[in-house]
Amino acid sequence: MKVYGDLQSGNCLKVKMLLSFLSIEHEWIDVNILAGETKTDAFRSKNPNGKIPAVELDDGRYLCESNAILGYFAENTALLPTDIYLKAKVYEWLFFEQYSHEPFIAVARFIQKYLGMPKEREDEYFSLQEGGNKALQLMENQLAQTKFLVGNEMTIADISLYAYSHVADEGGFDLNHYPEIKKWCHRIQSTPSYVGMM
Amino acid sequence: MKVYGDLQSGNCLKVKMLLSFLSIEHEWIDVNILAGETKTDAFRSKNPNGKIPAVELDDGRYLCESNAILGYFAENTALLPTDIYLKAKVYEWLFFEQYSHEPFIAVARFIQKYLGMPKEREDEYFSLQEGGNKALQLMENQLAQTKFLVGNEMTIADISLYAYSHVADEGGFDLNHYPEIKKWCHRIQSTPSYVGMM
Repeated sequence: MKVYGDLQSGNCLKVKMLLSFLSIEHEWIDVNILAGETKTDAFRSKNPNGKIPAVELDDGRYLCESNAILGYFAENTALLPTDIYLKAKVYEWLFFEQYSHEPFIAVARFIQKYLGMPKEREDEYFSLQEGGNKALQLMENQLAQTKFLVGNEMTIADISLYAYSHVADEGGFDLNHYPEIKKWCHRIQSTPSYVGMM
Repeated sequence: MKVYGDLQSGNCLKVKMLLSFLSIEHEWIDVNILAGETKTDAFRSKNPNGKIPAVELDDGRYLCESNAILGYFAENTALLPTDIYLKAKVYEWLFFEQYSHEPFIAVARFIQKYLGMPKEREDEYFSLQEGGNKALQLMENQLAQTKFLVGNEMTIADISLYAYSHVADEGGFDLNHYPEIKKWCHRIQSTPSYVGMM
């Protein structure tokens, strides 16, 4: 199995973390977004949407969208509950991540860390702070009640939200305002087989 | 069971369509976004993120995020494959919908239809056209190969993507450029128990 990704990308880190937690062997193939490597015809034959991560299964079929990849590998493991309500709560957090969290925190981080805060994107960067802090506050409120986002065991909801939350300071978000998130990050980092960004 | 929503909202229509296809009885409670009804404390006790749709199950538990709601009710029905690869492909489209489709097409439609194209949002409106057309083109390419988005049977991927695609013209997108999408819309509308926007 091959995984196409960039270990500085939270969306890619999610997949790396999950495969490590589940001890699933794979070949990691680095893809450089800034060099345009996701926009080539060769890459679009793997993911027509031109985004990483993309997984090439052993039978040659592809799977994209980081959170769909998490769901695929986590099915029938302890990282995705079998109870249909709890499973739906996990997916609720996964959709929250893609709509209400990533577009603020990951984009602000991209502007600050990848692009080096160019003048023409400063207004956008500052406009992203409110939404990012709102998302972090919703996580903080949940984590004040339960050890992980869906109850007291780690699920793929935690892996998904962890990916950009733990580096939110690289997008201008101060995690010192979110003590429960900091404790939760530490809990995840202390889990056997944890892998972080390179 | 109670569903809180607005039938002009594609995210809410998804839930209405699915419950109709599956003949699941429910009470529909109209919520007016523009009147601020999703931002009250009473509503935030149902969904802390302040968004519709929100489902209140018979036991009083809540479920939010339209696509997570679809997954919950579709589990173990013909609308969600049991094969784990095909199921993951359904979720791939659901995450695509929330990240690469809805933020362009639904937001452009909101500016045009709900807000009446205020001058101060015109630039944003026009900036959304490219991303929306890219998303529609990716759907068009898939629908040139299969009758529905994941193979030849309707799944919740189709319900989810249909919601804002079939009214994309209300956000400035001309579906005459996407003949396969138009045929697919007609296929969905011809399905027994189909319900549309009010």
